[in-house]
Formats: sequence, structure tokens, C-alpha cells
Amino acid sequence: MAAPRYTGLPTFMRAAQVGDAAEVDIAMIGVPFDAAVTNRPGARHGPREIRNMSSLMRAIHPVSKINPYKLCRVGDLGDVPLPRVYDLSATVQDIAGFYRKVRAAGAVPLSAGGDHSIAFPILQAIGEERPVGLVQIDAHTDTWDEFLGSKFTHGAPFRRAVEAGVLDPKRTIQIGIRGAQNTEEGWTFSRDSGMRVVFMEEFTGMGVKAVIAEIRRVVGDGPTYVSFDIDGLDPAFAPGTGTPEVGGLTTVEAQALLRGLQGVDLVGGDVVEVSPPFDPTGNTALVGATMMYEILCVLADAVRRRREA
Amino acid sequence: MAAPRYTGLPTFMRAAQVGDAAEVDIAMIGVPFDAAVTNRPGARHGPREIRNMSSLMRAIHPVSKINPYKLCRVGDLGDVPLPRVYDLSATVQDIAGFYRKVRAAGAVPLSAGGDHSIAFPILQAIGEERPVGLVQIDAHTDTWDEFLGSKFTHGAPFRRAVEAGVLDPKRTIQIGIRGAQNTEEGWTFSRDSGMRVVFMEEFTGMGVKAVIAEIRRVVGDGPTYVSFDIDGLDPAFAPGTGTPEVGGLTTVEAQALLRGLQGVDLVGGDVVEVSPPFDPTGNTALVGATMMYEILCVLADAVRRRREA
Amino acid sequence: MAAPRYTGLPTFMRAAQVGDAAEVDIAMIGVPFDAAVTNRPGARHGPREIRNMSSLMRAIHPVSKINPYKLCRVGDLGDVPLPRVYDLSATVQDIAGFYRKVRAAGAVPLSAGGDHSIAFPILQAIGEERPVGLVQIDAHTDTWDEFLGSKFTHGAPFRRAVEAGVLDPKRTIQIGIRGAQNTEEGWTFSRDSGMRVVFMEEFTGMGVKAVIAEIRRVVGDGPTYVSFDIDGLDPAFAPGTGTPEVGGLTTVEAQALLRGLQGVDLVGGDVVEVSPPFDPTGNTALVGATMMYEILCVLADAVRRRREA
Amino acid sequence: MAAPRYTGLPTFMRAAQVGDAAEVDIAMIGVPFDAAVTNRPGARHGPREIRNMSSLMRAIHPVSKINPYKLCRVGDLGDVPLPRVYDLSATVQDIAGFYRKVRAAGAVPLSAGGDHSIAFPILQAIGEERPVGLVQIDAHTDTWDEFLGSKFTHGAPFRRAVEAGVLDPKRTIQIGIRGAQNTEEGWTFSRDSGMRVVFMEEFTGMGVKAVIAEIRRVVGDGPTYVSFDIDGLDPAFAPGTGTPEVGGLTTVEAQALLRGLQGVDLVGGDVVEVSPPFDPTGNTALVGATMMYEILCVLADAVRRRREA
Amino acid sequence: MAAPRYTGLPTFMRAAQVGDAAEVDIAMIGVPFDAAVTNRPGARHGPREIRNMSSLMRAIHPVSKINPYKLCRVGDLGDVPLPRVYDLSATVQDIAGFYRKVRAAGAVPLSAGGDHSIAFPILQAIGEERPVGLVQIDAHTDTWDEFLGSKFTHGAPFRRAVEAGVLDPKRTIQIGIRGAQNTEEGWTFSRDSGMRVVFMEEFTGMGVKAVIAEIRRVVGDGPTYVSFDIDGLDPAFAPGTGTPEVGGLTTVEAQALLRGLQGVDLVGGDVVEVSPPFDPTGNTALVGATMMYEILCVLADAVRRRREA
Amino acid sequence: MAAPRYTGLPTFMRAAQVGDAAEVDIAMIGVPFDAAVTNRPGARHGPREIRNMSSLMRAIHPVSKINPYKLCRVGDLGDVPLPRVYDLSATVQDIAGFYRKVRAAGAVPLSAGGDHSIAFPILQAIGEERPVGLVQIDAHTDTWDEFLGSKFTHGAPFRRAVEAGVLDPKRTIQIGIRGAQNTEEGWTFSRDSGMRVVFMEEFTGMGVKAVIAEIRRVVGDGPTYVSFDIDGLDPAFAPGTGTPEVGGLTTVEAQALLRGLQGVDLVGGDVVEVSPPFDPTGNTALVGATMMYEILCVLADAVRRRREA
Repeated sequence: MAAPRYTGLPTFMRAAQVGDAAEVDIAMIGVPFDAAVTNRPGARHGPREIRNMSSLMRAIHPVSKINPYKLCRVGDLGDVPLPRVYDLSATVQDIAGFYRKVRAAGAVPLSAGGDHSIAFPILQAIGEERPVGLVQIDAHTDTWDEFLGSKFTHGAPFRRAVEAGVLDPKRTIQIGIRGAQNTEEGWTFSRDSGMRVVFMEEFTGMGVKAVIAEIRRVVGDGPTYVSFDIDGLDPAFAPGTGTPEVGGLTTVEAQALLRGLQGVDLVGGDVVEVSPPFDPTGNTALVGATMMYEILCVLADAVRRRREA
Repeated sequence: MAAPRYTGLPTFMRAAQVGDAAEVDIAMIGVPFDAAVTNRPGARHGPREIRNMSSLMRAIHPVSKINPYKLCRVGDLGDVPLPRVYDLSATVQDIAGFYRKVRAAGAVPLSAGGDHSIAFPILQAIGEERPVGLVQIDAHTDTWDEFLGSKFTHGAPFRRAVEAGVLDPKRTIQIGIRGAQNTEEGWTFSRDSGMRVVFMEEFTGMGVKAVIAEIRRVVGDGPTYVSFDIDGLDPAFAPGTGTPEVGGLTTVEAQALLRGLQGVDLVGGDVVEVSPPFDPTGNTALVGATMMYEILCVLADAVRRRREA
Repeated sequence: MAAPRYTGLPTFMRAAQVGDAAEVDIAMIGVPFDAAVTNRPGARHGPREIRNMSSLMRAIHPVSKINPYKLCRVGDLGDVPLPRVYDLSATVQDIAGFYRKVRAAGAVPLSAGGDHSIAFPILQAIGEERPVGLVQIDAHTDTWDEFLGSKFTHGAPFRRAVEAGVLDPKRTIQIGIRGAQNTEEGWTFSRDSGMRVVFMEEFTGMGVKAVIAEIRRVVGDGPTYVSFDIDGLDPAFAPGTGTPEVGGLTTVEAQALLRGLQGVDLVGGDVVEVSPPFDPTGNTALVGATMMYEILCVLADAVRRRREA
Repeated sequence: MAAPRYTGLPTFMRAAQVGDAAEVDIAMIGVPFDAAVTNRPGARHGPREIRNMSSLMRAIHPVSKINPYKLCRVGDLGDVPLPRVYDLSATVQDIAGFYRKVRAAGAVPLSAGGDHSIAFPILQAIGEERPVGLVQIDAHTDTWDEFLGSKFTHGAPFRRAVEAGVLDPKRTIQIGIRGAQNTEEGWTFSRDSGMRVVFMEEFTGMGVKAVIAEIRRVVGDGPTYVSFDIDGLDPAFAPGTGTPEVGGLTTVEAQALLRGLQGVDLVGGDVVEVSPPFDPTGNTALVGATMMYEILCVLADAVRRRREA
Repeated sequence: MAAPRYTGLPTFMRAAQVGDAAEVDIAMIGVPFDAAVTNRPGARHGPREIRNMSSLMRAIHPVSKINPYKLCRVGDLGDVPLPRVYDLSATVQDIAGFYRKVRAAGAVPLSAGGDHSIAFPILQAIGEERPVGLVQIDAHTDTWDEFLGSKFTHGAPFRRAVEAGVLDPKRTIQIGIRGAQNTEEGWTFSRDSGMRVVFMEEFTGMGVKAVIAEIRRVVGDGPTYVSFDIDGLDPAFAPGTGTPEVGGLTTVEAQALLRGLQGVDLVGGDVVEVSPPFDPTGNTALVGATMMYEILCVLADAVRRRREA
Repeated sequence: MAAPRYTGLPTFMRAAQVGDAAEVDIAMIGVPFDAAVTNRPGARHGPREIRNMSSLMRAIHPVSKINPYKLCRVGDLGDVPLPRVYDLSATVQDIAGFYRKVRAAGAVPLSAGGDHSIAFPILQAIGEERPVGLVQIDAHTDTWDEFLGSKFTHGAPFRRAVEAGVLDPKRTIQIGIRGAQNTEEGWTFSRDSGMRVVFMEEFTGMGVKAVIAEIRRVVGDGPTYVSFDIDGLDPAFAPGTGTPEVGGLTTVEAQALLRGLQGVDLVGGDVVEVSPPFDPTGNTALVGATMMYEILCVLADAVRRRREA
């Protein structure tokens, strides 16, 4: 990491390229797929721009002092191959298949989307043996049902994951939810299935510390996945996304939340919905890379704890 | 609202087009006029882009659960015709004339500017029988006198409205005021006429809840207009405006303020000074549409209350 | 058309909105669909931005002096409904069904895409009784076969149309073709099926006048469709597109080609592949609107000639 | 001019600031005014950005080898004061008054607009004693009559100038004219008053050399003004303008035309309609500065010839 | 300051141009230099764009009511000449030489960068007789040692200044520090030399008022310099910079900090690292100009106090 | 090359990464260096963006039908390491050293800059045994002498190369030269040393075919290098560059020139001065990638001919 940061091929975080998940403890993976969006596309270009901006990331965390590269083996596994990209449900299967192999190889995945639909097949792999808990930062619950004939849009992954038995709704917390809706269907599913929904208004009232405590209460000690939809942030901080919702989290708040996950038994994570065509400054991709680095640190620490346990 | 949101002709909020104000309780109106600015133009393009971005708005409010379309009839009345656009004072009259007809038809106006000069002729119509109160979110008091020979610039509407007897300064509160000035004239007029001015520094110190209480104290039970100048927000949240002032409100704060108006006897509102040429991400127009939706909800609730009273 | 051009709801060319194709001779239609692209998406936003920019269009053509609104009835029929947008082959059927109704109503369609995949279902409707000829301005032949499992990508419409018997390859001319390819499959199909392919290099050598003569020779007197892929232009003139190819037509050349179609028996046309997210100046959408106006003029003249015949 | 070009206060061409027109032979002047546009505003910001980009200009012309700073005294006289900017007809008078003083001081003006309405008051000063000839490069004839109640819009300056007797229509040539119109009024006025109109189609057919010959034939030996509307260029070369018309001149063609004016008795010139808010790359302002430099060279040569005559 | 703000040559704050530092009490100076950056360049264009945007600044401060132009003589001294710009260490000397002359003339400098490397030579001049204290708002400590062979990069100025004995580390406070690092070298130097480092996390916990108290405690009554690196702000507020770090100060917080310096014995200040090529909205330059105005007010008050003492 | 083009790590042309020049016949190399510019920086980001956009390139050339990957081994060798980036003359040596190794390994280099200063050290390696001929497409001759104390700016490489005896001026042709200059020094050096300079004006007059003939006449049969400065193109086609000069080549013309090099004994090439921060659409980088692909084809053919000779 001594060369100027604008040089070289941009792997995630300037980590080594790896061809086999077995070479690493944490596999960083791109999922350049956006055919499941309901509004503006472009998140297919997310992995490239997040990789590009992630060259600005460095090793030692300024608060936790975690250096993830010292705690475990970290590498860039490339992008998920998508040979049936025009067929949404087939692609969901292809993604799940890829992540099953990653998991079989013993690696923990940290992914960059792509739209949020990718979270369902990832959870299918991660939660296959035992449903996982979830910390979701997002403007939307993404627990809606079929839309325009498809059950696999980016508004539905966590409903599908609960139905598939790979996500434990009782150990799920959704933070930053806001924005009007045409029906209450998604809100209702989240509530009725037992998810803890922290609407933006409640978030502001509670403050970050109380929300972190609530996260830890909800997910407990079990294996937990963290999914960061960039639209959980206010669009001033992350304009480059497909379904922006005004009135969201600041980056300072989001970083504090992610740092608050240290000690949780994390088994994977993702940053999704970065859409470069709507991001003229590149700042959204930079924010995406930064949040991915924050997750990398707490994930590496979880890997270390499991190894040392 | 079931079709993908990027399809169809973009009316405000994807509401029905109406040709006659009598068909609706709330008439959404564009005022594509910016000849009264003192610095950067472009707000004439505001109505189009706010309409365009307002396709992302939906029906049910996430906090109040208000669905404005259930409470009353809402439609897009199109743009105010501006047949004398090169003559500023004549155009002020033309706008006033249009809004008098809207009012005569029994509709309450919710407008998208255009620069802030449009607030004076709107108030001429709204406050014709009885001066109204005002909740103004803005970086500037807009109570300055003549500038470069004109009494009708976007820095003057509320001074003109007080002079015309259509605005009650004792029931006026101005929130978010900041930015240096070359004379204290405007600040002095606001203070001396009895307006309550909440400078940004005071806003930060008080916090949102106290400011909402202050709003309600100032405007009381009388008919009240709400005017939202997008430059009340910090330019990080709304760069696309003609006279940006660094150090303003966040969108979370602004939404909380507008939600705090539920229960006030609102008789109209506007969102002004969105200038698309200075808004490469489109986020300012999205914020404008969102604030317009927030006002729509509390306005619809006021219509309902008056109807039920 | 007397109001300032930035005012009002942006229908195509500021023409009247119509709800029924039977009300017009020429129906302008948006097809906000881009799920068939092979690279950058965004053309789903094309119809909105082309409509927006088309407000700059006016009535009387500067060269031909054609005023299309005097020659026949012209209206904006809105966007094709896309209720199965996540299913590419179903959507192809939905588009074809819509255009069959337009044709049954006696209207000639002038469409704004959307990606180029929409040309196949349009031709299915237009060429149903008798295969049509084609003037195609494009960087790519769009006669490729299956890609990543789909036969309906935007690289395939004219191959599909020939196979379906709705396009006559002997009366097809493709102009502006360029860009490297990984296989020669598409070039080969065009040539072997009898299409006349004018590669960019040949275009430059021949000059515009000779190419117009060649167009007229190829399409002859039969019914002919004109399809204008915006990537036929050099990306300096039209950067906002999904598969830009450097080294293309200028707008002066393209306008001359379209003006050269006066006298051809045109039965429909389209402008496709305008992708606003990649078009920061809006110029690509303006070019799209301008080419659509050019086609409108020669199409209106063809309508007049058929009516008078 | 030895310092890096991004340093220092940006005067036009990095020439000296002068406070009095009598100090120079050629006075470069900004006219930051755009209240007369019919569509997109922003040209008020033109002088600043043209000045900014003009730092890239240097002294010795690559073709004519003219060094204007050797031939005569050249300076930046600042911007025309606009104390009545909200009153269009008063501002026309203010501009005329300013230029009368420049002329009285013996300086020849080279101006940067601002919209094209400024050409009328400039011509009022320049042509006061004797009507001048005109070389106009433009997409529009700008000889339209009243629009929305005003006779002084940017579509009318040359009609007003003919009526005022300060412009000789018989010695006027308009080049690059194109774009549809809603009435033929402007085209008709140009033709009927005796102006030579070279529509874009004719320009392409004739070629640059023949057009230069035609210019020289039309303007002859009399005093001649050159007015360069940046929208004469194709918007690929100059997107940052208020009324772009697709299908215009290239910069290579425009430079050749301006170089062809060497030997004409030039008495002033302008570059207008550069609108920075619509110019994200800054290229339009750079083109404006370059065309201004081209005019400066032939203007300086004309000054020299008159001095030596 | 009565003319429209988009007119005239853009000096800093529209103050008078001065050719000699002796004419003013506060000299505003541009340092268009960015050859010392470690990542993205462009800050060489900072002075021009900050000047340009500073036209929006006015005289009377909204909170302190300070009018700096009433308290002392303020002028724009132009840019530091940089005749050896390709030689980094020579340029450091050239800058120091320029500021020594400013100081000798009795003027206090307020500078616009340029990258942060310029702070070392400025401090060499300012702290020559007695080391100064420092209030630094920044994402990085800028106390790193040699990088790629140079001791003068923008990551090193305050280490160099301590070593040169012109900066008192015990009277230095660094606020907003964040971002991962590859070594702890800089953090260690700051801590070991006695600087007070307020990491972003601590800043959030303390709140602005407590940080202001801490500033005053650290710098005490001695002469103090204020250095504002625009990357101290979150990139949502200031995207146009070379080394953005997500999770920073808001503009409201930064303005409060600077206002809190009233009463400190300020002897100079700067705003650095504004990089216009990465600032498509221009908002970063506007923020830079605003922070410069904030510093100007407290600096002018310090000048007044020293004069009156 | 079957995967969607927005996926995977962006090597040049999606070619294989290679760690050793001996593995390939043509080594594609990035030189992320811009410390030698005289105006706007940013070309250090060129290699990344050219790589990114080069994913749109494919294999078989549409005119020559050359498939470079069939003719020889082609790979991406990464970026030149720049360990002394703050020292311009040392970096010139570092670059030369790198290319000497490439040459020693038997590979022919095809480079992406970076600014044009990199051409001198490349030529030092390529022309070490025998001075090479040069085909230079450029707005500037780049034969100027020392500027602000440095002999190695991007305005000087070809003067340095002639002085070093590695470039044969008699076999050098410079095409597209234009733009005013403050002294004639560079033009004079080119002429006096025997270079053939085709100024833009002459280019327009001759036409592309005659210029190709002239190229072949000048360079003859000897080993020849091709250097493509992106500012040789008009800034409408390539705005993202540091020293844009209005009035340049079109991409169609430039492609024809490069295709005309088939048969010349090419021994290397480069595309330089692509500056992504000034390229909001990315089109300049796409043009850069396209020109690099054009050079790759004729270079591969030259490699084949030498192998077969």
C-alpha cells in the first residue's frame, strides 16, 4: 500500500486478488447486478467504482485500532459470474450457488452490490444450516411481496429470506426506515414476523448509542449478517443510488453503528445500491468503500474471536 | 401509482391533471418564474424538475400515516401562465390574479417555484380577506426593500406582503436565517414589524422540538401559510439554488419542522428556489418534491379538519 | 406553443396528449424499457428526457418548410404500459400487443426508447401483414444472436424481425456501422440475409448525398420503417447512451440523411438508446428530440401522400 | 503571460485592467445580462467564465501570425454597470450609454455577453453616425418582433437595429441559421430587409471558402461589426447555451470564417450566449474565449490598417 | 458591493486589489500550488474558484455582527508568484519568502490554497520570531514524515514546522482527525510532541461547545494561527478535495468552531485543499469562501484588539 | 470477453495481467504521472479510467479485420512504479529504466499516460540503439525548451528526445498543431530540426488521405513510434485534458490516420493527456481507449510482419 493510491489495478481495498475462496478468511466479492431495481438502474457499475474508490482506504482503524489484514487473510475474489443475467430468478440461483462455494471453502463473504436483491441468495448460502440474524441499515424494509410479476425485486429479499428459513426475523433489526409507501404491506410483514424496525424518526429520538444497544439486544450472540443499503444514508451523503429517500442517516451516525458491531458474531456483510451513473462526484462510491472497510474491521475481529474461541 | 416510477408524464406526485381548481381541494401549481433573483437564475426550471422527481413520492406518510389522497381531492393544476414575463411588476399582478381564481374556486394552493418573489402575489390572494400567519423556512428574511430599482425581487416578498396588509408579521416566524449582509435593513424590518426570527445559531441551540413549540406559539390558531425556501437547507442537501448559504438546516430537521405543523390551520404552502441548472445530481429537486409532499400531508389534514369542523 | 418553452407538462413536441390512437394520424409513444441492454442501462429514462427536451422543438422545418401539425393529426399517446418488466420475453409480447392496437386504430407510430430491443416487437406489429423495409442509423447491426441466454437483447432485434418475417432484409440498409466485435456473427447475418451495410468508413468515403441515393435504391417504393439508434452518432454529439462507439456520424450528417427520406413511403419510426444518466448536459436527449422531429416531418409528409394518393 | 495560466485574477486574455476606454485601442468588455432570454438563463455568468477560460489564450496567432498586443493597445475595461437590471428597456439604454462613451473615447469594443439582446444597444452606439454592416454567426436570425410583450428579447436585436437605422441590412450576412420556427416572421424580415441568410444546409453545400467570399461580397469595404452567437456552433461544441440548436457549425469551420475576416473594416465584435450553468466541462466558455481571441486578431489588424491608412 | 454579485473581476470577498501588503492590515492571498499532494491534484485551481464564489460573501456577520471592513483595512494581494513550481523544496522557500515580506509590511495573511503543504512556509514566516499556536481543522494530522522521497508533502507541514521551531506543539490543537492509516507515525508524532488531537469520534462525543473550550485552553493567550483544511468537513459538504475522508464535520459545526475563536490572538489563517476539478456544484469552493469569511471576521477583531491594546 | 463488460477488474482491453514483459509481444502499460503539466493536472488518473473504459473494446477491427490477439501475445503489464514522484527529473529516469527492461524483454510497449512528458523517457528506451521516427498527433509541437526552471515539462519531450539522439527529427511528423503561442520557439525548433509540421489549417486543406501519404513519406521504412496526445482532437471529442485547444481533429479523422499506419514499422505507441477530473461523461477516456485499440491493431500487425520477415 506504499504506492500512490491512484496507481495499479483497483482491487477492493488494494487487497490481493485471489482465485479461490479457500485462500482467505474474508472474501471480498463484487455482484454487478441491477436487474431487480424498481426505479433507477446503475448499481451494476457499483463494484467497479467501489473498488476504484476503495484505494483510498488504509489499514489501521482510527478508533478501534483494528488492522484487519493482521487479524486474518483478506482478498478480492472478483465478481460473481452472471451467465443468465436476463433471467432474474435464474440469476438468484447462480448467486446462491457461488456463495455456497465460498462458504464451503471456509471463507466469510463481504460483498459489494449490485442492488439489494442480491442479499436473498447470499443469505440462502450463509443461513443454509441455521438462520442468521440481521443488522440492516436501509431506508426501506425490503420485505415487500411480488412487484410487477416478480418475487425477487430489490424490495423483497428479506421477506424471501424469512420464507426460505434462512433469516431469523426475531433476530433482525432494520434501521433508518423512512419514506412514504403506497401500501403498508412491507412495514406490516416486518412487524408481524417479529423484526425490530427503527424508523428514522425513532432513530433521531433515541440517538446512536441507544440504537447500538438495541442492535445488540436483538441479534444477541448468534451468527449475524450485516447489510448496508447505501440509501439508508441521506442522499446528501450518498446521492448515487436508485431509490433515494430524503431525510436519512449521516455518515458519522452510520460509522458509529457499524463500529458498534464489534463483539457481534458476524458471518458476512454487504454494501449495496451504489449506482455510479447518479454519482457525479464519486462520493457515494467512496462512502460505500468506507462502510465496507468499517464492516471489514468488525468482521475480521469476529473471525479472530471465532478462531481464538 | 402502480406503474414504474420513471414512466408517464410527470405531474406533481403523479396526481391527476386538472384543468379547473374547483375539481380539487388542494391544487398543486407550478410557477416557472425567476426574473426576480439577485444572483444565479434557473428556478424557472424548478417546476419541471420537481414534478419529475416527485414521481418518487408515494401515498402513506411513514410517521403520521396520513394519506393525503384519502383525506381530500388533490390534483396538478399545471403552471401559472406568464404572458408578461419580461415585466416584473406586471407578472406579480398576473400571478396574484391566477391565485385569486384558485381561491375563489375553493381550492388551497400548494406551489412549486420559481424564485421567492412569487410568495408576495400568492399571499395577496390568500390573505386578501384576512392577513395570514406565516411559517417561513429560509436562509434569508426576504424582507429587504428595493434592490436595483425594483420592489419585487426575491429578497422582498414578505416586506411587500406586510405593507399590503396580507401578512400578519406578529404571526410570522422565520427559521434558519443566516448569512452575512451588507446592511441590516432586512433583519431590522423583520424585528421591528414583530416577526419572530430564529437565526440558525439560535435554531441549533434550541433544537427542533423547541422550535416547533415556538412555531405553534407564534402562529396560533389562525390561518397560516408555509413557505419553504430550499436555501433554508444547507447547500450540501440542496446545492441547486440561486443564493446558497453555507451552514443551514439538515433535511431531517426540516422534515421534523414540517411534520410539527400538523394541527396548524394551514391555508397554503410553497417550495421555492429550486434551480435545476445548479443541481447536477437532481437531489435538490428530489428534496423539493419531498418537502412538498410533507406539506401536502399536513395541508390535507388541515383541509380535513376544516371540513369536519 | 406560445408559452415559454420551460413551462407546462412536457409532452413530446408539446403536442396534445391523447388517450386513444384513433384520435391521431401519428402517435408519439414512449417505451421506457432498458432491461435488454448488454452494457450500461438508463434508456428507461429516455422518454421522459426526450419529452422534456422536445419542448425546444417548433413547427415549421427550416429546410423542407414542412409543418407536420398542418399535414396531419399528431399527438402524444403516453408510454407503453409494462406490467411484466422483469420478464424480457413477456415484455416483448406486451410491446407488440400495444403497437398492434395502435396500428389497428389507423395510427402510424413514432417512438422514443428505451433500448433497441423495442424495435422487434414494434416491427412485429408494423410488418405483420407485409414485411417492411428499414432505414437503420446505428453503430451496430443489431443482428446478433442469443447473448447470455436471451434472444431478445438490444443486439438482436433485426435478426429476430427477419426470422419472424416482418422485416425484409433485401430492403434494409444499415448506416454508420462500426466498432470492433468479438465474432463476425452479426456482420455475417446482415450480409448473408441481403441487408446493405454501410460501414462508417464507407459512409465517409461516399458522402451523404450518395448514401441518400443508396437508401432510396434499397428501400424503393415499399413501406419502410426508420430506426435511429442514437449511438449511430459520434459520442461527442450523443454521449448519453449505453454502448457508445467512437468515430460516428455528426448531427449535420444525420439530419441530412433523415431529410433525404422525404418521398419514401414511411410507416413508422423510432429514436432509441438515449440514456439520460450518462448525459450530464442533456444534449443527447436534445439530439434525440431533434431527430424525432426530423422523422416526424418526413413521416407526416408520407401520411399526407398516402391520404392524397 | 509567463506565470502559470491558472494563477492571478482572470482578466480577458490576461490583458491589463483599464479603468478608462481612452487608454486602449480595443476595449474588452463584459455584459453580464441575460434577462432577455426566451428559454434557459445563465448567460449573465458568461463574462466571468469566458475571462476565466481566456487565460488559456496566448499572443501569436498560429495561422496569421498576428500578435494583437503588438498591433495596438488592448485592455479589459471590466463589466458594463447594470443599475436597472430588472427593467429590460432601461437596461438597453444603459448599455447603449456605456458603449457611446467607449466609442467617444476612441476605443473599439470587443464584448462578451450576456444574451444576444445586448447587440442592439451596442449597435446603437457603434452605428450611430453611419449604419454598420454585420457578420452574424448564429443559429437564429434574431430578427423576430415582440415576444411576450417585449421588443427587446434576445430574438429581436437585429430587427430593432435595422429599425433604428444603425444596421444596414443590405450589408448584413447571417450564417448558420437553422432550427424550426413557429412562424416565418424572422426569416421573412431578414429576407425582405435585404439581409443575406446562409441557412446551415446552404453552408454545408457551399463550403467554408465560398461562404467567406460571400461574406466579403456582402459587407464590402464599409465599417462592419461581427457578432458571434455561440449557438451558431453545434451543441456538441458548445452545449452551454440557452437555445441550443442541433446541427450547427464546427469550431474548425467557425475559426476559418473568423480568420476570413482579415481585411474587412471591422469596428467591433462580440461573443454572446455562453451560459456556464449548462456547461459542466467549461468547454463552451473555452470556445467562447477562443472565438473572442480570433476576433481580437482580425480586429487588431483592422485597427492597424485604419491607423496606417 | 452594490452591483450584482456575478459581475466584475472576482477578488476575494470583492475586496480591493492591492499591490503592496503595506496598504492593508489583512492581506488575502492565493497560493495556487498542489504539487505536494499524495492523491488527487487540482487544488492549484482553488484560489480562482474560492475568489469566484466569495462574491457571495457580504459584510456584516449574522451572529457576531462584526463587519471586518469597518475594523481594519482588508485587500486582495493576488497570488504568490511561483517561478520554480516544478521544484517542491524550492517552492517551499519561495512561499516562505513571500510571506516574510507580507509580515515585514505589517500585514496579517489570510490565505487560500493550494494544498496543505503551503502551511509550512507560511508558518516559517509567521512564527519566525516566536513559535505560534495552531488551531487546525482537518481530517489528518499532517504530521507524517517523508513520503516517496519528499519531506514537504501535504501530509507533513506541521511536523516540519515543529522541527523548524516555528510551531509550538503544546499550543496546537487538531480537530476532526479520522480515517485509517497504514502506520501510526503521524498520530504518534502529534501525541508525543504534545499536540492535542481531537479525533472525530471524540469530537462527536464532546460536542462543539466543549471543543471550543478546549481550543481556548490549549492555545491560551499567545499568537495563534488557524488552518482550515476543507477535508476536515464531511465530503457531503465538501466533495471537491484531494483526500476526502468520510465521516467529518458539518458546516454548522465548523462555523461554530471558527466563531469560537473570537478573543484568541489570531495572527493569520488559511483555507486549503479546495480542489475545483472534483467539485461539480462549486459548493466546496463556496464553503471554502464562507470559512475564509468566518476567519476574516475573527482575524479582523484580533487586529482591532491588538491595535486598541 | 464473454462476460458483461462492466464486470471484473478492468485491465487494458480486458487482456490478461502479466507480471513480466517477456510473457508478451505487446505490453500495455500505464504511466500515472502528471507532475510535468503546465496547466490543469489530472492525467495521473488517466490509466485507471482508460482501463475502465477499455472494457468496451472488442477483438476484431471493423475495417482492417485485424484481431490483435490472434497476431501476437498481448497483456497488461500494470503501471510503471514511481517511487520518486515529487522529483521530476528523477522520475524521468525511473520511467526510462522501466521501459529499458520492457525492451530488453523483447516486448513492444503501448502506453497510457499520464502527461506527455512521459514520451521522452519512453523514447530514451525505444530509441537507445537507433533513433526512431515519430508520428505525433497533437495540438502542440511539444518541442519547447525550459519552462519555470524545468527541462522536462510536457511541452518539451520531443526537443529533449532529439537532443538525446533517440528521435530522428527528419523522420518526425507532427499533425494537428494549432493554438496561439507566446513565443515561436517550439514551432521554430520543429521546423529547424527538420520535423514536418502539419498545422491544423493545412490538415483541413489537405484532407486525411493526403496526410496519410505524407506520414508514410516522412517516416519511411524505419522503426517508428506513434504518440497520440488526446488534445490533438477537438475538445468537443475529448474535453478531459489539461491544455485543450479548440479547433482540432475529429475522431473519424484520427481513426483514419491511425489506420493509415498499417504497414509502417511501428515499435511502440502511447495515448497521453487524458485527464479524468475534467471528463464528466467519461467520453475522453473512451476515446483514449479507442485510439489505443486502433494503435494496438497496427502495432500487432507490425509485430507479425517483423516476426514473419
